[in-house]
Amino acid sequence: MGIAHEMARKQREISVAEFFEKNRHILGFDSLTKSLVVSVKEAVDNSLDACEEAQMLPDILVQIDNTGKDEYRVIVEDNGPGIVRKNVPYVFGKLLYGSRFHALRQSRGQQGIGISAVVLYGQLSTGKPARIISKIEEDEVAYEFLLTINTKKNEPRVIKEEPIIWHKDHGTRVEITVRGRYTRGKQSAYEYLQQTAIVNPQAQITFIEPDGRKTVFKRVVDILPPPTKEIKPHPHGIELGELVNMARNTKAYRLTSFLTSEFSRISPKIAEKICKLAYLPADMRPQDMTLSEAKRILSAFEKVKLMAPPTDCLSPIGETLIKKGLKNVLGSLKPGFYAQPITRDPRVYSGNPFIVEAGIVYGGELPKDQSVKILRFANRVPLLYQQGADVITKAISSIDWRRYGLEQRGGEGIPVGPAIILVHVASTRIPFTSEAKEAIADVPEIYEEIQLALKSLGRQLKMYRVKKERKKKLSEKFFLVNKILPEIARKSAEIVEKPVPKLEPVITNIMNIIWIDEDVKKDNDKTIITVRIANFTDENQKFMLYGDYPLGTVIETDGTIEEDYVKWYVEIKPVSYQYHKIILANVDGYTETNYYVDGINPNKVIGAEPLPGDWRIKLDFVEELEKEEEVSEDEQ
Amino acid sequence: MGIAHEMARKQREISVAEFFEKNRHILGFDSLTKSLVVSVKEAVDNSLDACEEAQMLPDILVQIDNTGKDEYRVIVEDNGPGIVRKNVPYVFGKLLYGSRFHALRQSRGQQGIGISAVVLYGQLSTGKPARIISKIEEDEVAYEFLLTINTKKNEPRVIKEEPIIWHKDHGTRVEITVRGRYTRGKQSAYEYLQQTAIVNPQAQITFIEPDGRKTVFKRVVDILPPPTKEIKPHPHGIELGELVNMARNTKAYRLTSFLTSEFSRISPKIAEKICKLAYLPADMRPQDMTLSEAKRILSAFEKVKLMAPPTDCLSPIGETLIKKGLKNVLGSLKPGFYAQPITRDPRVYSGNPFIVEAGIVYGGELPKDQSVKILRFANRVPLLYQQGADVITKAISSIDWRRYGLEQRGGEGIPVGPAIILVHVASTRIPFTSEAKEAIADVPEIYEEIQLALKSLGRQLKMYRVKKERKKKLSEKFFLVNKILPEIARKSAEIVEKPVPKLEPVITNIMNIIWIDEDVKKDNDKTIITVRIANFTDENQKFMLYGDYPLGTVIETDGTIEEDYVKWYVEIKPVSYQYHKIILANVDGYTETNYYVDGINPNKVIGAEPLPGDWRIKLDFVEELEKEEEVSEDEQ
Repeated sequence: MGIAHEMARKQREISVAEFFEKNRHILGFDSLTKSLVVSVKEAVDNSLDACEEAQMLPDILVQIDNTGKDEYRVIVEDNGPGIVRKNVPYVFGKLLYGSRFHALRQSRGQQGIGISAVVLYGQLSTGKPARIISKIEEDEVAYEFLLTINTKKNEPRVIKEEPIIWHKDHGTRVEITVRGRYTRGKQSAYEYLQQTAIVNPQAQITFIEPDGRKTVFKRVVDILPPPTKEIKPHPHGIELGELVNMARNTKAYRLTSFLTSEFSRISPKIAEKICKLAYLPADMRPQDMTLSEAKRILSAFEKVKLMAPPTDCLSPIGETLIKKGLKNVLGSLKPGFYAQPITRDPRVYSGNPFIVEAGIVYGGELPKDQSVKILRFANRVPLLYQQGADVITKAISSIDWRRYGLEQRGGEGIPVGPAIILVHVASTRIPFTSEAKEAIADVPEIYEEIQLALKSLGRQLKMYRVKKERKKKLSEKFFLVNKILPEIARKSAEIVEKPVPKLEPVITNIMNIIWIDEDVKKDNDKTIITVRIANFTDENQKFMLYGDYPLGTVIETDGTIEEDYVKWYVEIKPVSYQYHKIILANVDGYTETNYYVDGINPNKVIGAEPLPGDWRIKLDFVEELEKEEEVSEDEQ
Repeated sequence: MGIAHEMARKQREISVAEFFEKNRHILGFDSLTKSLVVSVKEAVDNSLDACEEAQMLPDILVQIDNTGKDEYRVIVEDNGPGIVRKNVPYVFGKLLYGSRFHALRQSRGQQGIGISAVVLYGQLSTGKPARIISKIEEDEVAYEFLLTINTKKNEPRVIKEEPIIWHKDHGTRVEITVRGRYTRGKQSAYEYLQQTAIVNPQAQITFIEPDGRKTVFKRVVDILPPPTKEIKPHPHGIELGELVNMARNTKAYRLTSFLTSEFSRISPKIAEKICKLAYLPADMRPQDMTLSEAKRILSAFEKVKLMAPPTDCLSPIGETLIKKGLKNVLGSLKPGFYAQPITRDPRVYSGNPFIVEAGIVYGGELPKDQSVKILRFANRVPLLYQQGADVITKAISSIDWRRYGLEQRGGEGIPVGPAIILVHVASTRIPFTSEAKEAIADVPEIYEEIQLALKSLGRQLKMYRVKKERKKKLSEKFFLVNKILPEIARKSAEIVEKPVPKLEPVITNIMNIIWIDEDVKKDNDKTIITVRIANFTDENQKFMLYGDYPLGTVIETDGTIEEDYVKWYVEIKPVSYQYHKIILANVDGYTETNYYVDGINPNKVIGAEPLPGDWRIKLDFVEELEKEEEVSEDEQ
């Protein structure tokens, strides 16, 4: 027998389960510690997706039990809609099976691999089957399953299936025993759940660790993110082969109806235009489309004006939540500056809409001599691993942060300084670098959007630093005006024996700002803070003032406590002062408070920033900086 | 209808081809430039594997034609065994189909995904089918195929299949048209082929670029790497689930025969011992093995002494070829120092044997102020992308290179200096981080082996630098001994009116080395080099001396030209000199030559290094350094 025939004998099909059985590191199971985190993650992501799709407020229990040396049972129980009985074995016991793969809308799971991969890893590493309990509302009882995966066939092998009485109306409980190692701290199940809670404030997550410690990540808002809608692919970024495929499989009889029914953002009018530009009859059968005809349609797609893809398929975190999330994770670090979070307009890569969001905080007690901390999220899922392989890291490293005030060797790489950068990519399809979903691939369109968002944050950071510098300089001016000018006026008036002149117009002319500062005194076990507001403009001023005190420590105040702030409604006459008092239980290490204003042009205010989340006012300062930058970029 | 039922309606199977159609970046198709390189790579890897398996010297043509804007036809033609007609559609038109997935032996392709992924990408991006011609020796004619992949079913769709007359006896020609962008230089098809040629010196690769430029990477050796053999899994690293699976599917009737027949390195005697340690009867039916019994067997595996896995399943590059490869890629940079390449003993991760090899070169005209260049190889395939995600990079970054003489910020990260580090991982299964096979996953066993290999290289580097320092110091001593001592002796003898004393014993006592240096003179269009050898030992010395001159420039020499060197057989008496002359055509910028010795303890020689590839002599120096290091590591 010849060599080719001999080789042919060995050629055969490989089941996808066999493939991943031998390549489980591709799914993220490459170390004991990580394997445990991935197991928790896949189950929780599924629970969150199910609740969101069913528009239910998630209430999730996560429990990790130590069941032997390097062996843990991961339990995740949710109050979601449950899974109908006949589908349970496939959802958990077959790789590449799912409901979200063919749908163009944002969801955490997309691949139909995650949870069955955990079942596969569990049986491979411990030999134990997965235990699933699921109940749907319509059924009287829940069903309990014990199952493994037949890897040769990639089919579920059900060991036990029986009805049981369960305490829940509906929901799913997953128990999978895996080889792993439990850690806390960086890149742990704890960190994953904490970051998940940040960007999913609608979820209540209870976590019980192997040692019995119980943490509840509380629900912060009672509103569900709006449900994401399925959309048709957008014509931009569609590839030739894909177009031909779609034309071949469409049920439409005419080219125009194919275009309007299978794509988003193509109206009948635009469809006509595309046909004309492609020199094709509107009534041609799409199934007959040749390669060169498809090419003409593709180039026509580029020539017509198309609306951006619909965004109801996406669920960005939103500026307010990004702010809240950052405040939450920062705990007591009290950064001096929260940039306005950026939510970019949606764009498209390969027909998939996506949105980039980003935020930055700076200063306070964040470490000054370390690399900036990066928080990465994809479709509201925190990414803990493979930071180096992520397009987010690449985009951050590509920017010269020195111009915005962070340290950076040679103007590239991850900058050093007291800052945290958060980036969220939301898309109907996140291009992960592998099935482990640890890093977002280097797709040029996404890279570009992240860069733009970061530059915009950088400009704000620079503005903040410029303003801080300005306050320092103005402080001298303020002192002069405030103390010496009246004195000079009084003395001069005495000498020339005339009445003291009205100084207000002079002062307002010199200053033209609202000045806010604080005075801090310790009194035994109390901290007494006096806020001074000075109106050095020639007009009455009305605005809201917010003081970001350590909440829970406020004993007494003439303001009102609202959400995270102490709040005052300020009404102040030209060239006058106003004082407010706050008494705190003695806070060790209290240094200063961040003040925020709302309802006034923040450029007129020295000593307070615009309220994070309130960004209706376009800042001239940013515009100026943008102009500067354009010039300097042109010069290069 | 309830929400769970509604959701269930959408749950369905996903074909693996559909999966990769939507996630093609996972396969490496994430930018136009890279997509083209990956297409070339997958086809060439297949050709090399086929030739190796059939034990044929590969002769491969690679041609890239520009067929439109951002569109290229990739042609790869080999003289391999060909593919039998009925298998061609599956090899190229079905993902997860192959001959090497189930075999435990080293090969480039393992996954059964690569080449069909290129076909998939081609049809997706250009709509064009792949064209395959293949002929096996037994058939009269070749067969030509035009095919695409039916992604919904992951099955080949054959458009044309017909016999044709072909100029080859046997072989395969692949033509796939893909969207891409052609570049030269870093991370290009050219670099991939060049590095492939380095570690596959048995292959002749002809490359025709889109502009018609033709490069031939010549065959350097006429010997094929020994064919790799299939082995059984090694007991170390086998997981519980895997063991249970194997026991369930074995044809053996007794536990002992199961152990001896399904594993490597288990003899009947050891099998008996394992049964005893696991408290199991030798004649128990393996199919009845319970989970707890399997656990006992696993722990027995750890208790018995087992030989390392057989290595004939692996095909390391070998020290000589690593040296040649490095010399080749370095071109005219002429580094001052080639460390002894390290080939570590085989080890096992998850039952897969692997070998780590590493080499380092240092000095010469390599850039001093840049990061060390890293050459990564997996199963003789160069890895060009995702350096940051690779365990090789992680291992290099983890070592404190400052102690070995390279610059490094804080003792971690990629060091800076005039060096190139080559690391090759050979295994029956390379744990790639994704199907794109761009980076090796962070498997602890592999990480550790790479670290050990690198530390050994680092010690050699340190030794080289210490020796260089020593030569500098000895140079003064040499001058004193050589010039002043005889002078003093002569004068003293004159004064005391006695005969000049015999100085030889004194000199040899002081020096006890062989000294080699060179004198360079320019003479019009020639460079005249005089090599001086001084024997300052009290014995006759015999050894081979090699001069590493720019080959092709040697006009005249009293040595013989052999392979890459000018070579002399040196026989020299105690306390005597010998001179050799070499005339080179005038070489611009010629500075100095590296000299190597063979057949003598290199520690006795100043001015020459041990011949790369000749490492039979254990160097005392290295031992000393190893001891030093152990001490300093203990101290930490």
